[in-house]
Amino acid sequence: MKIARFEADGEISFGILDPAEDGTGVELVELVGDPIVAGYDTTGKRFKFEDVRLLAPVIPRSKIVCVGKNYADHIEEMKDVTGGDAPAEPLLFLKPNTSVIGPGGTIVRPAISDRVEHEGELAMVIGAIAKDVPEDRALEYVFGFTCANDVSARDIQIADGQWTRGKGFDTFCPLGPVIETDPDLADARVTTRVNGETRQDGTTSQLIFSLARIVAHASQAFTLLPGDVILTGTPAGVGLLEPGDAVEVEVEGIGILRNTVA
Amino acid sequence: MKIARFEADGEISFGILDPAEDGTGVELVELVGDPIVAGYDTTGKRFKFEDVRLLAPVIPRSKIVCVGKNYADHIEEMKDVTGGDAPAEPLLFLKPNTSVIGPGGTIVRPAISDRVEHEGELAMVIGAIAKDVPEDRALEYVFGFTCANDVSARDIQIADGQWTRGKGFDTFCPLGPVIETDPDLADARVTTRVNGETRQDGTTSQLIFSLARIVAHASQAFTLLPGDVILTGTPAGVGLLEPGDAVEVEVEGIGILRNTVA
Repeated sequence: MKIARFEADGEISFGILDPAEDGTGVELVELVGDPIVAGYDTTGKRFKFEDVRLLAPVIPRSKIVCVGKNYADHIEEMKDVTGGDAPAEPLLFLKPNTSVIGPGGTIVRPAISDRVEHEGELAMVIGAIAKDVPEDRALEYVFGFTCANDVSARDIQIADGQWTRGKGFDTFCPLGPVIETDPDLADARVTTRVNGETRQDGTTSQLIFSLARIVAHASQAFTLLPGDVILTGTPAGVGLLEPGDAVEVEVEGIGILRNTVA
Repeated sequence: MKIARFEADGEISFGILDPAEDGTGVELVELVGDPIVAGYDTTGKRFKFEDVRLLAPVIPRSKIVCVGKNYADHIEEMKDVTGGDAPAEPLLFLKPNTSVIGPGGTIVRPAISDRVEHEGELAMVIGAIAKDVPEDRALEYVFGFTCANDVSARDIQIADGQWTRGKGFDTFCPLGPVIETDPDLADARVTTRVNGETRQDGTTSQLIFSLARIVAHASQAFTLLPGDVILTGTPAGVGLLEPGDAVEVEVEGIGILRNTVA
């Protein structure tokens, strides 16, 4: 099932993607509330995609946990920045919820950076309070999956050493377009395109630390709350975003997250 | 003015500290809502301290921004861990809001760390949305000030390199006991005691980056939201916390934040 969050006529709602009643594509069946907490009861109202504006599919209430260095080929390409060693455990950092934008939103390059880069990633959306969960049950706490762009001001990331500021600017965490609650992620492609040209092309089979391991590890440190988001790392091919660029992150089976750069 | 957040008879309220009507010390005048957003209207109800349980004086809605390396003597004592160099700009990292506990709360040492340490600090509470604010107006966005303990699992901080996990565990951000809206912070002592013994003893006059500079710098990266908290760095003397320890962080003119260790 695919779930979107959207604005229509000034109201913000969640909706389930459903075949259109007139047989032309897909439309949105409105839910009574946030399905993470309110389940799947519908209002009965249906919306066409052209009549809504999609928002980030999750309300980022608390935190966005990110995993660094989780694809071997990306570790290799970044060895001058972050060292070429693979970590013994998932390496965690945070992006603030103020960095989140939705599909179609604009990534704003800060004036103080000359090197803003894309990092396309698979993201997990937490559905239940999780603390010290064992790896073999960790995925039970995941509500669904979406696409993310871990936008990074590489010059500031390098200058600070700590990655928080360079990766935490407003607009630096595009999420969307939808949450897929049950994708096949055994070997799903994670692709990033800039102006139509493929820049990053990996698959979830290349993840050094599994999705379950990441959730278990993060929950050992932080209580994960419903609506928390975990970014799972980026494959090789990170590169510059320039003003006017159109950047797309696609995770097979989930959708395409499109954003522009200002 | 001093503001507390407290639980009494199962209800959570904010209150202003006021001389007790019977002349014996101080009591709490209940406010109708969170003064950051609802102002200072009172309900007329008064509570004695012995009848309430103090909570973290701010609801941590979004993020806790922390400044590393902001006292010269602490940079020197930590040079084997973080390098002995002073940063050219305030060095920012985040603690998640799930790490916050209040006065009297218990700091829980995680099983995976053998080296949990205290870092007593002055903290700022943001009162208005702040983005790209100039340094000379930055303090207008600060609602008030409180005491904080930037509790750190030093072994995990060192192993990860990124400080997020080692400093982000649940219970690793005690805040309180109150917010003082107008303290004199030109040269206020910031003291940390463990079981009554003074471990850290600095003053705000030793801050490398001023409070205004920190707010301006953080707001250049992140939109600061009402209720966000900024920890301003710790002076020298950080050290171990053991089970059963009582740790106190005192900022002159604000109060004493007391916590125990489990």
